[in-house]
Amino acid sequence: MTVVPVILSGGAGTRLWPASRESEPKPFLTMPDGLSLVQKALARAFSLGAPMDVPEVIVVTNRDYLYRTIDECVRLDEEHPPLRFVLEPEGRNTAPAIALAARAAQAAHGSGAVLLVLPADHLINDVPAFTAAAIEAATLATQGHLVTFGIRPTRAETGFGYIECGAALGKAGQAVNRFVEKPPRTTAESFVAAGNYLWNSGMFCFGAATIAKALAEHAPGLSKAVDEVWQTRRSGTYEHCATLEFDPAAFARLPSESIDYAVMEKARPVACVPAAFDWSDIGSWQALSEAMPVDADGNSRTGHGIAIGTRNTAVHAGNTRLVATVGVDNLVIVDTPDALLVADRNQTQAVKDVVIALKAAGDERYKLHATATRPWGRYTVLHEAPGFKIKRIEVKPGHTLSLQLHHRRSEHWVVIGGEAEVVNGERLFTLAVNESTYIPVETKHRLANRTNAPLVLIEVQCGDYLGEDDIVRFEDKYGRVG
Amino acid sequence: MTVVPVILSGGAGTRLWPASRESEPKPFLTMPDGLSLVQKALARAFSLGAPMDVPEVIVVTNRDYLYRTIDECVRLDEEHPPLRFVLEPEGRNTAPAIALAARAAQAAHGSGAVLLVLPADHLINDVPAFTAAAIEAATLATQGHLVTFGIRPTRAETGFGYIECGAALGKAGQAVNRFVEKPPRTTAESFVAAGNYLWNSGMFCFGAATIAKALAEHAPGLSKAVDEVWQTRRSGTYEHCATLEFDPAAFARLPSESIDYAVMEKARPVACVPAAFDWSDIGSWQALSEAMPVDADGNSRTGHGIAIGTRNTAVHAGNTRLVATVGVDNLVIVDTPDALLVADRNQTQAVKDVVIALKAAGDERYKLHATATRPWGRYTVLHEAPGFKIKRIEVKPGHTLSLQLHHRRSEHWVVIGGEAEVVNGERLFTLAVNESTYIPVETKHRLANRTNAPLVLIEVQCGDYLGEDDIVRFEDKYGRVG
Repeated sequence: MTVVPVILSGGAGTRLWPASRESEPKPFLTMPDGLSLVQKALARAFSLGAPMDVPEVIVVTNRDYLYRTIDECVRLDEEHPPLRFVLEPEGRNTAPAIALAARAAQAAHGSGAVLLVLPADHLINDVPAFTAAAIEAATLATQGHLVTFGIRPTRAETGFGYIECGAALGKAGQAVNRFVEKPPRTTAESFVAAGNYLWNSGMFCFGAATIAKALAEHAPGLSKAVDEVWQTRRSGTYEHCATLEFDPAAFARLPSESIDYAVMEKARPVACVPAAFDWSDIGSWQALSEAMPVDADGNSRTGHGIAIGTRNTAVHAGNTRLVATVGVDNLVIVDTPDALLVADRNQTQAVKDVVIALKAAGDERYKLHATATRPWGRYTVLHEAPGFKIKRIEVKPGHTLSLQLHHRRSEHWVVIGGEAEVVNGERLFTLAVNESTYIPVETKHRLANRTNAPLVLIEVQCGDYLGEDDIVRFEDKYGRVG
Repeated sequence: MTVVPVILSGGAGTRLWPASRESEPKPFLTMPDGLSLVQKALARAFSLGAPMDVPEVIVVTNRDYLYRTIDECVRLDEEHPPLRFVLEPEGRNTAPAIALAARAAQAAHGSGAVLLVLPADHLINDVPAFTAAAIEAATLATQGHLVTFGIRPTRAETGFGYIECGAALGKAGQAVNRFVEKPPRTTAESFVAAGNYLWNSGMFCFGAATIAKALAEHAPGLSKAVDEVWQTRRSGTYEHCATLEFDPAAFARLPSESIDYAVMEKARPVACVPAAFDWSDIGSWQALSEAMPVDADGNSRTGHGIAIGTRNTAVHAGNTRLVATVGVDNLVIVDTPDALLVADRNQTQAVKDVVIALKAAGDERYKLHATATRPWGRYTVLHEAPGFKIKRIEVKPGHTLSLQLHHRRSEHWVVIGGEAEVVNGERLFTLAVNESTYIPVETKHRLANRTNAPLVLIEVQCGDYLGEDDIVRFEDKYGRVG
């Protein structure tokens, strides 16, 4: 059977601030094993094999995350089926995302194609058990079922939806009697006690034609709006990946609805495959900390640190700064270059209030990291003070920044790794490690990496205004001119 | 009466790591009002007036702290009596420090001079009450008493020595019956209950001749060793301050003893002036946090941050990084550029164990800060990775670095503030803001600030070895050649 994994990758991830921010949300969060959540989701999709035939993997994401997602995939360094990106100008919840993916799969692989919908921000470690469940779900999907994956509840969680399961179906599935959205605590407790209620994981499996038909029947307005968006599609390729883009105005008219609300709660027949694998939606620092290995004192740690008399404390840090804890219990500490979070482990849901407060105060750290990802690579602001700013700039092999100038700042470049091809005014030249150049104000310049190794340079900007918006682009291979 | 304040400034301050480190110990710790503890101690000494005549202020400190201490004094921007520095090659506890200060005061101001010994790392806010106590103590000292300042105990502290007070003396003094070193808890509790026991503050007042005589009587070996060190003295001046230095070999033969042990516990007559002022020895982050103003939730803060559901928590941070707390209680959080401490407020004594662990691991952050103070100014390592290092360098007006070269690194300099005079090989030139130069490997170079404003530059070092010890100095105005 033809199965097309559909990875849904997006979300602001405000509850995982300061590691996850709008510019780099939850799917890009790196786990202790060095892999990001989206890398793990891609790896899960890539590992599917017979009896499933996987002709391609569809990733539905914001166009801003395209370059970064491809980077993550490249860093996996695996042979894999082709990727196709369905690029959203803005988020519209899961129903429109799945509807567009279904049309793309149907167009490319016919009505018999089965979609396996996988959110990019879930953590699943037992990949063989996941694959077994996917086979079961795909089998039920080919029989016309809309299939959910249910998670055995471990607590009376009020933040998840529940699925009431009924009669057995197929090898390991069950019929779904009903969906219950986030219930009050007493209801959640009775569900857990009853035994036949599972958490709604947000993973699904259905035929592309089946879900399209169900959408037309149960959410006709949404289905019609998706048809209109689909008509505006433009196919392209970027770095060997197929892309589909849509008219932003048509996209903006899509209703924001979840697939649960639009279809699953209303349609029949719906089946559920209970997960025999571990699962976390990493919905908070508490959840993420629970997914990390702990020592005898209940502590977990990434990065460099020292713990004295410390218990049940999770430290998420880099390798540069030192994090020392003394006599503390039950904390989550998240250290990033420009922001630090110290939270009680049981109150990490309130981290989103920090993001709200930052946004209200006009502090861009609610959405931006010290390191910004660009199509050509990335830069990190190392230091900033009135009159100057210092950046570390990394250009990927074969990439080129736009031909540009600045009205109010000059730039000093010192190459510290690789080799730079530089346009500086009328001159074109290369800079090796330990060589430098000076770009005066109002001077057209361009930086390129024509080699197969990363180019790294230090940029010292001087000027009375150093905002990123002081940039005039003349040519840009990433379509950022005009 | 002639009163010479003697400020004792030193100590590793390991319990106040990471803000206080060996390279910049407790006296340099900045309080929320922007003044360091040593600045406050100097200000206390400078504010003494009639009936006391203060001909000079003596600061006993390590020679490594001379430049930094003078900077602190200059930043106070006050008219003040002349400063004289008694420079120790290494710490030998309080008895030798006071004995040398006494000889210096006696030589300069005669046997009638009274010493007022003030540790540089105490916090006292009520300066008028302090001054009143100093007058009382100096009066008793002129009558031949060795005078201590006693602090009314607020708890059964086992980390302090106690003074048992007896009959009234003078206007507000009391005779001292005995000293008791750090007692066990039950003893401390009985002292607090008894009412006539005070904490031994470590501040003293006595005639220069009186303390010299008492030392000769009660600590004859120490007194003789001090005489030998005194014979090796070399007078000098630095930045309008008098300096006294001694032969390091002679100094190394001094026993390391406290003035309490060497003299005060044995000599008679000893008097005590009870302090009518607030006092903290800032012996821990808990003590420092108690000295800070708190909000309605018991929180105190320096630096930029956001507190959600946070109580009784002290945040000590700079203005660059953001510190967010969520749902925490009773913590001390200390954020510095290269190290972070999160500690339970009641367990901050164990912070010294972090320093021990760092030292054992060969991590220099136990003693060095990201910012290093030099006679000519300071530098901060902004970023470091294999092959390169970026520093922000600040040169004080009128100062000059040594004429030097490096065998294994080249340097790119970009001026971002002020004006630099540069020797680069055979060339001598000036660099204004936004100008740069390149110093190749093995090239003699020198950086100077001939202006009245600070010079700030960014240095990008490139090389296979970037240790501070790759430096050959040819000329140095601070005596660091050979």
